[in-house]
Amino acid sequence: MSELLSRIIEMVKPLDGRAMTEAQARQNLLTKPRDSLGRLEGLSVQLAGIQGRSVPQIRHKAIITMAGDHGVVAEGVGNWLQEVTAQMVCNFLNGGAGINVIAHQVGARIIVVDMGVATGLEPHPQLLSRRIAPGTRNIAQGQAMTREQAVTAVETGMEIVAAEVAKGLDIVGTGDMGIGNTTASSAICAVMMGRPAAEVTGRGTGITDEQLKHKIEVIEIALAVNHPDPEQPLEVLAKVGGFEIGGLVGVMLGAAAHRIPVVIDGFISGAAALIATALSPKLKDFLIAGHVSDETGHRLVLNHLGLEPLLDLGMRLGEGTGAALGIFLAETSARVLAEMATFTEAGVHQEEETDN
Amino acid sequence: MSELLSRIIEMVKPLDGRAMTEAQARQNLLTKPRDSLGRLEGLSVQLAGIQGRSVPQIRHKAIITMAGDHGVVAEGVGNWLQEVTAQMVCNFLNGGAGINVIAHQVGARIIVVDMGVATGLEPHPQLLSRRIAPGTRNIAQGQAMTREQAVTAVETGMEIVAAEVAKGLDIVGTGDMGIGNTTASSAICAVMMGRPAAEVTGRGTGITDEQLKHKIEVIEIALAVNHPDPEQPLEVLAKVGGFEIGGLVGVMLGAAAHRIPVVIDGFISGAAALIATALSPKLKDFLIAGHVSDETGHRLVLNHLGLEPLLDLGMRLGEGTGAALGIFLAETSARVLAEMATFTEAGVHQEEETDN
Repeated sequence: MSELLSRIIEMVKPLDGRAMTEAQARQNLLTKPRDSLGRLEGLSVQLAGIQGRSVPQIRHKAIITMAGDHGVVAEGVGNWLQEVTAQMVCNFLNGGAGINVIAHQVGARIIVVDMGVATGLEPHPQLLSRRIAPGTRNIAQGQAMTREQAVTAVETGMEIVAAEVAKGLDIVGTGDMGIGNTTASSAICAVMMGRPAAEVTGRGTGITDEQLKHKIEVIEIALAVNHPDPEQPLEVLAKVGGFEIGGLVGVMLGAAAHRIPVVIDGFISGAAALIATALSPKLKDFLIAGHVSDETGHRLVLNHLGLEPLLDLGMRLGEGTGAALGIFLAETSARVLAEMATFTEAGVHQEEETDN
Repeated sequence: MSELLSRIIEMVKPLDGRAMTEAQARQNLLTKPRDSLGRLEGLSVQLAGIQGRSVPQIRHKAIITMAGDHGVVAEGVGNWLQEVTAQMVCNFLNGGAGINVIAHQVGARIIVVDMGVATGLEPHPQLLSRRIAPGTRNIAQGQAMTREQAVTAVETGMEIVAAEVAKGLDIVGTGDMGIGNTTASSAICAVMMGRPAAEVTGRGTGITDEQLKHKIEVIEIALAVNHPDPEQPLEVLAKVGGFEIGGLVGVMLGAAAHRIPVVIDGFISGAAALIATALSPKLKDFLIAGHVSDETGHRLVLNHLGLEPLLDLGMRLGEGTGAALGIFLAETSARVLAEMATFTEAGVHQEEETDN
């Protein structure tokens, strides 16, 4: 493991118990029946513990959307051309994608990162070019990337989130773009959760039953060819992962090291979270599941991580769209805690004591 | 039935099928895998059908929060003093309640209405005083209100929403405040759904097992004393309802008559929706369930209405808080449809055709 990586993992500390106790105590003073805001209350307490502030603040919001290509598309695992990854990155930069619309609505800035798109991308002032290689190699024939590339991908994510922290950051969402990346993610999930490929492989952007069968076979071959060891999370990333997935691992670890809550998006972010939490089990407490996606296996990943999703809207777009909606709810929870009046302030008579 | 009420019910027309077809067609051109935004896509199509516009618009947003008191509190059905209804209305007017925080975040104005608060309220520029009586009568001893009062309550809701439409309104959320109103709502639900009181009665603001048993008994007595007939929804409202519940019935009908989508909140709004949809079955298509509340019976009400909630966060505050979050998601769905680029506009290569 690299020095930077070890240092960042060391920086991930437990949540601030005192801030959490104070946040919960304030929740109980607010003008509402106790616990009546349900998960929003627990979420505000988690944010307090992460930020180390009894009244957490969600003002500076960002989505980091990382793009990368996957050599495994040569196996015919999906219906979309590899060029679409680059085309969608341009769409992000031009403001036309789903994540642009939703991030704008929730007031989050978007950081678009080329982690390893296969087809060339013109320079753009809004594009962070951190291209490790023009796509991974075909995991059905060998490992996706070298060990060094895997470490570089993770370190890149860490550096990008650190730069955002320097600009002001209260919460971050993870997003992805990469034709073929549900295949890599399913491979990661199968290894990290010890499940058969068939259980954690879904239809991605939408494939037929026959194509799904083929996709599962390709993943089984990739696992047989590479023999990734779940005890070696960076090795799993190198053998069957992706550059954008590695980048998201780094975003999660780097954010937690800086006490920034991380709202994870769907299946690809979930695969990254499996690797990141294996590297740093304490990270889990810094993660918020924005939603459960419609992609097969995502629910299993969230269960494995011990995360309960905030939303279940049958979405499966990626890009960070589910994370952006989760950021909205995190902000709601923090605003409620900060802005609602207490019983004393409002002159409202609190409920009579019961044995309840 | 009053002339106004009949006229409004007549004004509720079916959804605009052409607008819906056009909205769905546009969804399929946007730069995302087909259906990948899940329920947000269907929601945008519903909004199109309601507004009669192929690209619906959610800019002017309002929550109508109606307050009323309930004579049944004399039976000891809860833990909160009746004065709290008036105190919470003041809290709404001073901006300190949960609904103030969330409505502000989603950019919705709040209309606070005194439909029949028992304790006096000082005049306030932001308070609509439509007080029908100082609370309903005790439903365990007779009917809650007269037939005329029930009609007045519904008409008041219709008039208030019409005034908001005149100011500019693209979507409305329903909210409630009234100590004792889960008891009235459970009675309504039991009648309208033909269920035993025990199945649709919950802990409201939080009561013990023993108190819950007593609350169910009180509701059973109220139903035995009043014999409400589910075929006569206004009679049900008069016999076991509440002024704020009647007002919300009017808000729902009035909004639908003006082709305004209605995001319903929790259990009390659900009870109002049971009466409103019984008066006008076409209304159902104009309703959006913001969330499913933690209050026992709410899920049953939504099933009965054929509505799938957008959120399930264990909330049970009322006031319109769940509706406000639903308004946010409705706006998201409309923005996605309006603002995302099409494949052609973005120069993104669409997926290859499959038999899928």
